[in-house]
Amino acid sequence: MNTPLTYAMIGGGAGAFIGEVHRKAIALDNTATLVAGALSSTPERSLESAKQLGLPDNRSYGTYQELLESESSRSDKPDFIVIVTPNDTHYPIAKAALEAGFHVVLDKPATHTTEQAEELLQLARSKSLLCCVTYNYTGYPMVREARALLSSGELGPLRKAFVEYHQGWLATDLESSGQKQASWRVDPTRAGLAGALGDIGTHAENLLAFITNQEPHSVYATLKTFVPNRALDDDASVMINYESGAHAVLTASQICIGKSNALTIRVHCELGSIEWNQEAPDNLIVTKLNANPTTYTRGGPDLHQDTQLSSRIPAGHPEGYLEAFANIYRGVADHINAVRTNTEPTRLAQLIPTMTAGKQGVRFVEACVESSNSNSVVNL
Amino acid sequence: MNTPLTYAMIGGGAGAFIGEVHRKAIALDNTATLVAGALSSTPERSLESAKQLGLPDNRSYGTYQELLESESSRSDKPDFIVIVTPNDTHYPIAKAALEAGFHVVLDKPATHTTEQAEELLQLARSKSLLCCVTYNYTGYPMVREARALLSSGELGPLRKAFVEYHQGWLATDLESSGQKQASWRVDPTRAGLAGALGDIGTHAENLLAFITNQEPHSVYATLKTFVPNRALDDDASVMINYESGAHAVLTASQICIGKSNALTIRVHCELGSIEWNQEAPDNLIVTKLNANPTTYTRGGPDLHQDTQLSSRIPAGHPEGYLEAFANIYRGVADHINAVRTNTEPTRLAQLIPTMTAGKQGVRFVEACVESSNSNSVVNL
Amino acid sequence: MNTPLTYAMIGGGAGAFIGEVHRKAIALDNTATLVAGALSSTPERSLESAKQLGLPDNRSYGTYQELLESESSRSDKPDFIVIVTPNDTHYPIAKAALEAGFHVVLDKPATHTTEQAEELLQLARSKSLLCCVTYNYTGYPMVREARALLSSGELGPLRKAFVEYHQGWLATDLESSGQKQASWRVDPTRAGLAGALGDIGTHAENLLAFITNQEPHSVYATLKTFVPNRALDDDASVMINYESGAHAVLTASQICIGKSNALTIRVHCELGSIEWNQEAPDNLIVTKLNANPTTYTRGGPDLHQDTQLSSRIPAGHPEGYLEAFANIYRGVADHINAVRTNTEPTRLAQLIPTMTAGKQGVRFVEACVESSNSNSVVNL
Amino acid sequence: MNTPLTYAMIGGGAGAFIGEVHRKAIALDNTATLVAGALSSTPERSLESAKQLGLPDNRSYGTYQELLESESSRSDKPDFIVIVTPNDTHYPIAKAALEAGFHVVLDKPATHTTEQAEELLQLARSKSLLCCVTYNYTGYPMVREARALLSSGELGPLRKAFVEYHQGWLATDLESSGQKQASWRVDPTRAGLAGALGDIGTHAENLLAFITNQEPHSVYATLKTFVPNRALDDDASVMINYESGAHAVLTASQICIGKSNALTIRVHCELGSIEWNQEAPDNLIVTKLNANPTTYTRGGPDLHQDTQLSSRIPAGHPEGYLEAFANIYRGVADHINAVRTNTEPTRLAQLIPTMTAGKQGVRFVEACVESSNSNSVVNL
Repeated sequence: MNTPLTYAMIGGGAGAFIGEVHRKAIALDNTATLVAGALSSTPERSLESAKQLGLPDNRSYGTYQELLESESSRSDKPDFIVIVTPNDTHYPIAKAALEAGFHVVLDKPATHTTEQAEELLQLARSKSLLCCVTYNYTGYPMVREARALLSSGELGPLRKAFVEYHQGWLATDLESSGQKQASWRVDPTRAGLAGALGDIGTHAENLLAFITNQEPHSVYATLKTFVPNRALDDDASVMINYESGAHAVLTASQICIGKSNALTIRVHCELGSIEWNQEAPDNLIVTKLNANPTTYTRGGPDLHQDTQLSSRIPAGHPEGYLEAFANIYRGVADHINAVRTNTEPTRLAQLIPTMTAGKQGVRFVEACVESSNSNSVVNL
Repeated sequence: MNTPLTYAMIGGGAGAFIGEVHRKAIALDNTATLVAGALSSTPERSLESAKQLGLPDNRSYGTYQELLESESSRSDKPDFIVIVTPNDTHYPIAKAALEAGFHVVLDKPATHTTEQAEELLQLARSKSLLCCVTYNYTGYPMVREARALLSSGELGPLRKAFVEYHQGWLATDLESSGQKQASWRVDPTRAGLAGALGDIGTHAENLLAFITNQEPHSVYATLKTFVPNRALDDDASVMINYESGAHAVLTASQICIGKSNALTIRVHCELGSIEWNQEAPDNLIVTKLNANPTTYTRGGPDLHQDTQLSSRIPAGHPEGYLEAFANIYRGVADHINAVRTNTEPTRLAQLIPTMTAGKQGVRFVEACVESSNSNSVVNL
Repeated sequence: MNTPLTYAMIGGGAGAFIGEVHRKAIALDNTATLVAGALSSTPERSLESAKQLGLPDNRSYGTYQELLESESSRSDKPDFIVIVTPNDTHYPIAKAALEAGFHVVLDKPATHTTEQAEELLQLARSKSLLCCVTYNYTGYPMVREARALLSSGELGPLRKAFVEYHQGWLATDLESSGQKQASWRVDPTRAGLAGALGDIGTHAENLLAFITNQEPHSVYATLKTFVPNRALDDDASVMINYESGAHAVLTASQICIGKSNALTIRVHCELGSIEWNQEAPDNLIVTKLNANPTTYTRGGPDLHQDTQLSSRIPAGHPEGYLEAFANIYRGVADHINAVRTNTEPTRLAQLIPTMTAGKQGVRFVEACVESSNSNSVVNL
Repeated sequence: MNTPLTYAMIGGGAGAFIGEVHRKAIALDNTATLVAGALSSTPERSLESAKQLGLPDNRSYGTYQELLESESSRSDKPDFIVIVTPNDTHYPIAKAALEAGFHVVLDKPATHTTEQAEELLQLARSKSLLCCVTYNYTGYPMVREARALLSSGELGPLRKAFVEYHQGWLATDLESSGQKQASWRVDPTRAGLAGALGDIGTHAENLLAFITNQEPHSVYATLKTFVPNRALDDDASVMINYESGAHAVLTASQICIGKSNALTIRVHCELGSIEWNQEAPDNLIVTKLNANPTTYTRGGPDLHQDTQLSSRIPAGHPEGYLEAFANIYRGVADHINAVRTNTEPTRLAQLIPTMTAGKQGVRFVEACVESSNSNSVVNL
């Protein structure tokens, strides 16, 4: 059994959405305990948020710099730092946290530029620290089943994939109403180069890479902005070429009225196919050549070990988004425990997304933006 | 904001399924902290399980009697006791816990007999203590939406309901393999009068009552045992008459190969219908007279307040079984805080199932067994 | 190749629903040609309808008696007679047609009483004539696949079945608006003993018998009339006991707002299950013990011969209600050709429902009505 | 009421798939009677096929030239000619038929080149003859509902569409087994410039144009051939730009194991969306801004007139592929009757696809092939 871990959080104060998700995901499996925080962009709000979360005064900080300085010198310093600040601050904070010697869990997208991502990647590597990027959709058990099926070779080589991430909540100019989630996502200074592509397209790209175990060789992308006066794309369509000759179509859009969080993937190989839908995540449809479609279910028969390890409760008792997210954190904890005990990382630890994936996502966005601007194919 | 609560657990030691579910459900929202336990049926295993959960030695107990005696005299005694032992021990333990002055959360079915349930009901009432029975499926947001829709009157009076709870895992004599979950469920001394009917049929009955806000007036039931040498029913079919003239068909079966945890309900009223499926719990299909079927979604537009309060994350980010279970505990905590602060209980507190529902479930099982044995209609 | 056949129709004039369905079903596969008709309940309207259908004057009749007398004496007399009149006239017309020496296709329910059905059954048998009753849902290819799967024994013996036929169109008193389809169905003199039970419940009963190849031994039924002032049931719930120990629940209702023609069946056997839904008729979900659910599709791999013979176009090109209906007529034609040529009937001919099924349906209705009235179990 | 029509068929002899589909579609509604045929590519097989279909000897022809010459001089000449020969012969036969003064129904794709299509278009126009191209998927009632909804303006201007046509039957080199349907489709001399793109991609393109009432302005396409030794594409991905600023992604593939005939379309407009799936064709999901998804059903409430006219039987009684195809022929007949009687064409007549759509489809294929070869955007 693992020793209980502790963590500090940067960002995720009152009113933030994703910080609360991280905390619940960590709490669900009793993976770690929150012991310190610098939770908001102003010292006052940071301290107020820390109080609401019941943090002791001496571990509630006004800024991330104070947190890192103070916590890194404690004998009971936290095992890892969770960074859930707006995109534009990921790079400096993650860099500082790694330099202070902490394992880091960083919300996606990792950074604004590939260079920044590469720097964090090298920094983590040189200090033997984890820098996990929370591509949380890879935490779903049946996504892991899909990956295991493709890895096993029984479906044959990849031919064609379709991955979509469609939402409808930005079909109107919600940002002009002051809605917080909308505002930063459409602001280039905070969101970065891309809108929908960066916010959700990178999840789609990562899901595709995770399942197929292949990286794009070149892309042709068209980015569109349908809502008037919006600065960034709210709709992206990408064709992906692989060196193997395989091909994929990726679309990410936030103007699809009727869609909530419709992340779906279909992967067609030479000997079979898989199909998965994030809104019905416990199922995976598998069809082998000349056979009928079969619905595999979390908790059901014939599943790979990675899938079984990523599941808590029996088939038919739905697990969801938070449980998938929590699987990432179980892997983080397993990684840290493996480092501590100098043992082999568990399967769960091996499945977590790291800065390698984070960098890949940033590079993908850059290439797509360049392709769309130049109306030409761009190599990654 | 609520003061943080603490709880003790009786039952739920190593290898138990439902105890872990309760703990995760409580942890998810940081609703309360486990501070004491008497976790298994033997002192040795109890203490071993307590150690695994990180409980301090002085609050780890070999028996529930020790726990209640010791904890009730502490100044920092737990706010409530969670009882997740086998069915046959619910009554004495819950009785002792209430007598010791604790709020109680009791796994279903509440007791073996209606008389026992009535006694617990009166005991809790006389001491102004909560005795919550974890009919957890009522914690799903869209179940609460269904209830709110029917309560609002906009669908008109109830006519006909269909509720099903179908599983397949007991289609073979799994119990003879020593599988722990199967063994006690088919053993009359532990499970009580009924098998599938008591284990899952009571969930269906409670779901129906929760949504329709009506109690059965009489039943005609047929209980079947399909697996050879099994002592209790593994399949139950019940026709339910209501005083209002409405009618319902309830079926519960554990021999339905292909079904995992297929709890579904369809309610047809004079002016509209609702349809819900536990395996896709974030959706509720609503059809009004002369209109097209519409899919309401957790987090979506046009939902009642009870539904919104029972949801954590946006539409399209699936919540599941644990989240629904956690909603019950949020209501428990709200109830206890309301008692403490002498304030009105919140909506979440008002929605939790109590011993009134628990007793109704026990009476329902008794009436169905009597009906099946006598091949006649039995009044409740 | 079969010689082209001809037929005459009794009933099915202007404004009738089911007569047009029969004609389209016959035309689809060029199964037979309409050559004569007595199409309505008055001579004037009969002749007017015949003219609209392009029938020659000398084969257009005012009454069925005239049709039978005149056509039976022709050298080119029709190969069979289709009877699509209101329920109450089925018996005398079918009797007269058989006595006149014609093969008969009779809409369901066959007759008002079991005695009448038995008489027609014996009459047809004694004259070696076909008396097909159009339980058209047995014409669906995937229903035939279900039957073939159960017959093969690979799913093991039947344990439990659930069959439902739910509609919503009679949720209000449509009959008082003068709607023709509604009016006769709720009128005991025309519809017979039962409303929803007779109109659609008998389809459900027949579908269940067709797939399971078992007949009910006894029933317990509750018939309800939810719409005020309606004379017959608009909702029926039936528990069915089989001699084998198997059990089934059948529900038929016409007050289910939101349901169009929701005929579904789930059959659970000892080694596997099947599930079919008339509104998605090209699919059949098959789950074998300890395996995942698999979706068989019309035109797909691994289908029995009966299924393949009942299909026209490739998988994914939907066939529907008319195609299923047409399969019955292909069987009728094959039967007649087999009689003509004194050869073995084809598989399609062997699959058609005859008066044996027709009588069973009438007896089922009688038993359910008696059970509901007496509130007791009734043997068939 | 329309006068009964007659038709001759060229192609569609024994063993052909699509000829039989046309005949059944025409027979279903008694739309017209087959009176003459030149059914196969050799005179012997043509005459043999004609005999099997029961055509009289004097109207059974060995070649299409004989048919056109002989039939055009008859006083009772057929009202229209159905051409269901391989793609490469469409142009000369259609040209000859139009020159002989016949209305023509031509299977898609219309011709091999845009020039040929333009010539047929002008020829038909100059002679006031119909040249219908059977883009049969536009015959589905709920596709017509989608078109009517978009035309009404209530969903606002088009933003983004996704249309897919995925099949799996050519995932292996079926053609090398001699399978007839596979062989010609992968043979450039018979199929034309494109494989999957021409065979099914053009259906997708036409469906998109029919529903949105917009034509592509430019395309970027990637054609892939995944099965070794195949001469034409078996997978196509196309990005479509519209002059309005709207965008669409179209994919057509025949190597998608697990897909039968998965033609789906999702159209997202400024105020709402529609979603349709050919394999569940009686449903259309409509979501309006800030509202829940609603399922419209053929035969259900709130449908446009075009939809109602295209439906035969009540909601819940599935119609399928043949019924949709038959709707095209009902429109053809209505058109011919309108010409005959010099009256306004009915709505059904106005909805049929003509050579304008046929030419558009050919041009689309050419532009996509050019784009894929040049790896650049091509204007249409």
